[in-house]
Amino acid sequence: MDDLERKILDLIPKSMAERGIVALESLIGPVRDVLNRRRFPDRPLSDLQIEWLLRLLSSMDSDKDVDAARVGEREGRVASPLVERLAAGFNHGVGRSGHVTAPQPKAAGASLMQQVCNSVATDAIRQLGLPNTRAGVVLPLSTGMSIALVAATLRRLFGVKRIVYPRIDHKSPRRGIALAGLEVVDVPTVLVDDAVQTDISELERALSTASDAAVLTTTTFFPPREPDPVKDVAKMCADRDVPHIINNAYGVQSVNIMSLVRSAIDAGRVDAVIQSSDKNFLSPVGGSVVVSPMEGLVHQIAETYAGRATAAPIVQTLAALLATGRLGYDHLRTEQHRNRVLLERRLVEIAEEIDQRVLQVRNPVSCAMTLDGLDAHDLGARLYNRRVTGPRAVERGEWGSCIDDYPHSYIVVNAAIGAREVDVERATTKLYKELKQRE
Amino acid sequence: MDDLERKILDLIPKSMAERGIVALESLIGPVRDVLNRRRFPDRPLSDLQIEWLLRLLSSMDSDKDVDAARVGEREGRVASPLVERLAAGFNHGVGRSGHVTAPQPKAAGASLMQQVCNSVATDAIRQLGLPNTRAGVVLPLSTGMSIALVAATLRRLFGVKRIVYPRIDHKSPRRGIALAGLEVVDVPTVLVDDAVQTDISELERALSTASDAAVLTTTTFFPPREPDPVKDVAKMCADRDVPHIINNAYGVQSVNIMSLVRSAIDAGRVDAVIQSSDKNFLSPVGGSVVVSPMEGLVHQIAETYAGRATAAPIVQTLAALLATGRLGYDHLRTEQHRNRVLLERRLVEIAEEIDQRVLQVRNPVSCAMTLDGLDAHDLGARLYNRRVTGPRAVERGEWGSCIDDYPHSYIVVNAAIGAREVDVERATTKLYKELKQRE
Amino acid sequence: MDDLERKILDLIPKSMAERGIVALESLIGPVRDVLNRRRFPDRPLSDLQIEWLLRLLSSMDSDKDVDAARVGEREGRVASPLVERLAAGFNHGVGRSGHVTAPQPKAAGASLMQQVCNSVATDAIRQLGLPNTRAGVVLPLSTGMSIALVAATLRRLFGVKRIVYPRIDHKSPRRGIALAGLEVVDVPTVLVDDAVQTDISELERALSTASDAAVLTTTTFFPPREPDPVKDVAKMCADRDVPHIINNAYGVQSVNIMSLVRSAIDAGRVDAVIQSSDKNFLSPVGGSVVVSPMEGLVHQIAETYAGRATAAPIVQTLAALLATGRLGYDHLRTEQHRNRVLLERRLVEIAEEIDQRVLQVRNPVSCAMTLDGLDAHDLGARLYNRRVTGPRAVERGEWGSCIDDYPHSYIVVNAAIGAREVDVERATTKLYKELKQRE
Amino acid sequence: MDDLERKILDLIPKSMAERGIVALESLIGPVRDVLNRRRFPDRPLSDLQIEWLLRLLSSMDSDKDVDAARVGEREGRVASPLVERLAAGFNHGVGRSGHVTAPQPKAAGASLMQQVCNSVATDAIRQLGLPNTRAGVVLPLSTGMSIALVAATLRRLFGVKRIVYPRIDHKSPRRGIALAGLEVVDVPTVLVDDAVQTDISELERALSTASDAAVLTTTTFFPPREPDPVKDVAKMCADRDVPHIINNAYGVQSVNIMSLVRSAIDAGRVDAVIQSSDKNFLSPVGGSVVVSPMEGLVHQIAETYAGRATAAPIVQTLAALLATGRLGYDHLRTEQHRNRVLLERRLVEIAEEIDQRVLQVRNPVSCAMTLDGLDAHDLGARLYNRRVTGPRAVERGEWGSCIDDYPHSYIVVNAAIGAREVDVERATTKLYKELKQRE
Repeated sequence: MDDLERKILDLIPKSMAERGIVALESLIGPVRDVLNRRRFPDRPLSDLQIEWLLRLLSSMDSDKDVDAARVGEREGRVASPLVERLAAGFNHGVGRSGHVTAPQPKAAGASLMQQVCNSVATDAIRQLGLPNTRAGVVLPLSTGMSIALVAATLRRLFGVKRIVYPRIDHKSPRRGIALAGLEVVDVPTVLVDDAVQTDISELERALSTASDAAVLTTTTFFPPREPDPVKDVAKMCADRDVPHIINNAYGVQSVNIMSLVRSAIDAGRVDAVIQSSDKNFLSPVGGSVVVSPMEGLVHQIAETYAGRATAAPIVQTLAALLATGRLGYDHLRTEQHRNRVLLERRLVEIAEEIDQRVLQVRNPVSCAMTLDGLDAHDLGARLYNRRVTGPRAVERGEWGSCIDDYPHSYIVVNAAIGAREVDVERATTKLYKELKQRE
Repeated sequence: MDDLERKILDLIPKSMAERGIVALESLIGPVRDVLNRRRFPDRPLSDLQIEWLLRLLSSMDSDKDVDAARVGEREGRVASPLVERLAAGFNHGVGRSGHVTAPQPKAAGASLMQQVCNSVATDAIRQLGLPNTRAGVVLPLSTGMSIALVAATLRRLFGVKRIVYPRIDHKSPRRGIALAGLEVVDVPTVLVDDAVQTDISELERALSTASDAAVLTTTTFFPPREPDPVKDVAKMCADRDVPHIINNAYGVQSVNIMSLVRSAIDAGRVDAVIQSSDKNFLSPVGGSVVVSPMEGLVHQIAETYAGRATAAPIVQTLAALLATGRLGYDHLRTEQHRNRVLLERRLVEIAEEIDQRVLQVRNPVSCAMTLDGLDAHDLGARLYNRRVTGPRAVERGEWGSCIDDYPHSYIVVNAAIGAREVDVERATTKLYKELKQRE
Repeated sequence: MDDLERKILDLIPKSMAERGIVALESLIGPVRDVLNRRRFPDRPLSDLQIEWLLRLLSSMDSDKDVDAARVGEREGRVASPLVERLAAGFNHGVGRSGHVTAPQPKAAGASLMQQVCNSVATDAIRQLGLPNTRAGVVLPLSTGMSIALVAATLRRLFGVKRIVYPRIDHKSPRRGIALAGLEVVDVPTVLVDDAVQTDISELERALSTASDAAVLTTTTFFPPREPDPVKDVAKMCADRDVPHIINNAYGVQSVNIMSLVRSAIDAGRVDAVIQSSDKNFLSPVGGSVVVSPMEGLVHQIAETYAGRATAAPIVQTLAALLATGRLGYDHLRTEQHRNRVLLERRLVEIAEEIDQRVLQVRNPVSCAMTLDGLDAHDLGARLYNRRVTGPRAVERGEWGSCIDDYPHSYIVVNAAIGAREVDVERATTKLYKELKQRE
Repeated sequence: MDDLERKILDLIPKSMAERGIVALESLIGPVRDVLNRRRFPDRPLSDLQIEWLLRLLSSMDSDKDVDAARVGEREGRVASPLVERLAAGFNHGVGRSGHVTAPQPKAAGASLMQQVCNSVATDAIRQLGLPNTRAGVVLPLSTGMSIALVAATLRRLFGVKRIVYPRIDHKSPRRGIALAGLEVVDVPTVLVDDAVQTDISELERALSTASDAAVLTTTTFFPPREPDPVKDVAKMCADRDVPHIINNAYGVQSVNIMSLVRSAIDAGRVDAVIQSSDKNFLSPVGGSVVVSPMEGLVHQIAETYAGRATAAPIVQTLAALLATGRLGYDHLRTEQHRNRVLLERRLVEIAEEIDQRVLQVRNPVSCAMTLDGLDAHDLGARLYNRRVTGPRAVERGEWGSCIDDYPHSYIVVNAAIGAREVDVERATTKLYKELKQRE
């Protein structure tokens, strides 16, 4: 490089060449920082900088070596330049048959990229509320599949055969447990005023009867379900020496939820905390961040994975983290909080006008309003057709409330991280119109 | 569109506008064909055409709807334009909590893309040797994880608890079986001259003793291992009513292997055939194509998957298939065959000169030469440093030969689909130099 | 398309497919509007929408026609896919040997693109202050070369041989006039307090003596030069039947300047108004927008251009205009105005502290502070090395002040459209530091 | 970088990290070579490598300096990330008000890029047939406008007022001369058998009468026009001390034409040779390469240009040159020659069948067949509608033959560099069908 710099100095005036190198350095500096320090940066990187990082790394994979002789059965060969672009150049994927985070000799760049992503994501989780995290990994799997992987790891390490699971009306986690060949032990919920809460005494009972069990708790779900009392559960698990997984699907956005999880880790046993990379970090669907207060578990989880995997969710999560940075994330959280307040205010106004009410349920992201006497399904379909995506309209007593015989029909609207004020405004305006129209 | 066409006619001379629309049509026509017919095309599509297809589809997802109100907890939000580009616009991923191929209401485009990819890939497998395939799916998982998914499905459907597995010295499939919570029943191999073959009588014995079992056979591995006699196994499985999975990892490239698999399907029981999308179709690592001669099984496999998934391996596989087309694939196969012949000739020449010999093992992709009396590991390391990627150097008796006490040290070199003549030439030249140098 | 829509309906649930098409429509709608109405849009288009537009258009060029037989001497052939991407697919460029805006039979798409760009840019100029504009064209040339083109056109149409040019110390316009083979008749300036103004009586004298003359006035330059009195000049030109070009280089950003130009058009003769596309519209350097209150002149200018041209400045200007939109431009203007106020306030503060003063010169973009007794060149070099780009430091009496013997050394700082508050703050802070350091 | 390398070594196994750096080096090596040596490379660079080069360079421009304070009136600001991508990051364009190849202090990277492009292009011209070239420049203008620029330069340097121009029926060059304010002195042609040739005695006469003249000769045009005898003209110009420009529009592809030009330079006076970058180097329309056997003239031409310019044609030409390389160009020339032979054979066959004949005209690219008694215009229109682009159908006596009263109607078909065999085959097949259909 020194030689090259000298040659450049010959071509254009010296002060100009120096300024050019200064500009290049100012652009590349934060990229180098990410490689050196592997921390969640304070200031977001620009797309240009992230592209530099990805290009630098993908250019280290052996398929970019123009002088290589590639005589394996798989060599990162691609059908066309577009196909390569679709993979951001990481044609070899990540991992090796060893496990999904093992360095791949043909893919030094992808291996580095993955390590950088793991470090940055773990640091982000630490900074955003779980400083007691010891290790973390970004998996190329969504939360449901990640639960499968963690569950299988617990079986391998601790002989776990059953997952005690306080009721959440969500299919993916149950499928994940089943895929890993474990049994679900259901824990029922109870109704406390409007809220649906885990029946803690039933949970204790399950733990005392079920042998070879682990617990899966949940911090984020739709109202009327409230977060599990993860601190209490963690203590219980510590007392009984029972593994404990927390499904913190979209909890990172909420300072309160993160504080709950943190205190659970401090107070008792938490083996792994799983969070969605798309729901928390504005990455496309497909990855999750699994962190653990225990050093070795994360490594074991990675080793449970069978073979190589697509690099895409790793790359996308890394890019999303860098494009946000700590300052960006703080800003997003502030906005989310403001939108959540706005959402509740709007729903209260609507509810008053049509003789319904907003359910009193603790939830930092979502808010629900009763639809008693109304056709919830029909309303949901109409909103969908009016281009409102994401609300959940549930009929009284229907699956979805996480309890049998919930006494209200209701609609849930979310003000999640990344949503804009205009989303909340449009959605509530359309909701209001649809409700008035049918009056 | 008609209106628009008329307006365009006003702007520029009529004949020119018509030619412009003809050009557009000629470009878009094959794209429309893919959407309409959903077949593996004869002629490859250009990258420009594939980009049109992907852009058209990704623009149908709700996050592209500029007038939508998005109030779900996940809405395909992305941290920056680069992050979106890294996902080719499919921010919602594929699937829903239902299962991984279920249409996702927020992602009409991704849902379509996935269906098109499944159809095209299945048609490709049919055209390339398995016309008796009834259904297929492209999974966002490599072969090891796909084996996990299929195994879990067999447990769910048929109560399978054990996988009878003729010995292959490869970690991923074993990890996959373990992840799904099934037990591996090993079937030993026998040495027949140079070749390592499944001990068919041991396999029969295993089947007669193991209850709740299924069989996993393998068509492609490194010499000295030969392909499993899948036709005989399929008959056995049919007779005993035992499910049978074929790991056809990189068999699509070989007309012979495909013919073996085809006759297995015709002659007996084959539940699913798993193939790697990167090893066969020059897609980046991360996907696999699972096909079945049974209509419903593929659907069940998809339903075993827990939740949504990254769209990337699906998009990449689709792009790779379209960029190749039937004509392109035939050409690649011809080239592969020629390179395989060249490879053997070169190894024979080298072997003669240094008093070694080429192992007599049936293998359409790879070829092995003995290294008796030489330090195989050292040779492997030196080749790696000389930028030869992919050869496997195995010491006598070491794990990797799929048998205990294989009587030779040896090196395996591959002439897989997509490799260039220059790869084989460089690799064998460097091999020769390294061998002569140490004499 | 109808057929295709029906097929799509078969693949995924009907309501979902409909929503998908709605999303696509919402995305494409504004793109279609641009093609149909060809106006400067109120709402900015997203990059995704602009890419759709460009791709649609570039796909209509004959080099995209996969079934064409291309046997011309130039056919939009490109050396690699990257080369095509660098041209956004407009490989044929724009224009034909006829002239630069003539439809090119091989490039229906580029021809349309150019027409759309001309219409949108002209409409933008109209909306942003010159409603009395009748026609306009975006040239693939910066302002200096555009002056050459316009000057050559005036010669061709009116026999113009001399350009009467009130003194501006800027090389490009003079070079442009010289390139076209015309002679410059200099008009001196006068000092009025701090300001340098055109000597209107000298201008009148020049017009009465010079035969075959046209006038080139300037609205935007650095202080101490003030804008030319274009309204008075326009009246003079009307009276004497002399063509009049206004170099409105970066005047579009200023409501005041645009109002001056508008009144000139209303009050007298203005043949053409030239504006930079990069200085006004945040497009990369390379294009300009030439508008005229006369219908036919713009066409004649285009016809003066010799042959085809690169499409790049046209594409970039179009993209920049669409990415901004009227609302975006209004926002940028507001910000520019605020930054200009901030800049002056800062310079006044600095000046007071170091016993200098801010020059009293009308200029909506730039502001100048005296540097009497200081080494202006040295200050300029130090600021450059401290990464402040764009200020002009002029020694007393030096070329650059548009007058001989200007009585001050001074530095000019700009708060142009698109600059950020942080630019002004950093620049003035560094300026202050450099000045204090040398005290 | 050393530090970074050490850190990387900590993250992944040492041998792997080393291989990663080797791969990166193998990719970047040729990029560094281009920067260091600035020669037309033997081996083509991959698109990935060219992207590295462009990104490296564009990252040196001041608008990429994240810590800069940008307070100029133009600062490379862009309306959106797409707009920046459309300029490959070279937002500042090239040149400064000084002239178009002067280093621009704000754009060190673009300045370097331009210098590299000039060197590489000049070296390419040298290697491809004009070793007696001393200097060259890539202009962001097509050949017509480049003729204007060169003509204006000749006026500025030598007082040239008239361009003696042997008749070519092509509008662009004449417009270019007119734009520069020079007069065209026509030299008529003569008919020699089928060929139209410059009347050399008329040319001599023009030179002896016209004062302040320069000559513009042409090497490539459509049959029946043959190349000008540039060697003889060069001698004449040397004898009379008259400047001489050669329009070598698409002559680089032809070894013969290049040899003619070379001998002209050796034998007499040639001031500048102009070639199209798109017609010779498969770059998009918009640039040209002007070379000169005289050191200083090219610099003067650049200085005649007024101000900055779009970087796009420079970037595109550089990319096209690097993507081709010497080996690629030799291959393209071979193919062109083969296609030219095929074209003539096909036309001879068709001509025989319909009682026409192929015109006997020396032309290394194009071939013409008579259409006597047929409606040439109608045939041309029908071919256009049948998607044959580029043939020229000329009626007897019509403008286009470069002579009055050419005795045949005819059609010209081209086999230019970059055309594929299938283009020639399709075009001649369709031509045959159209001709037979009308019989």
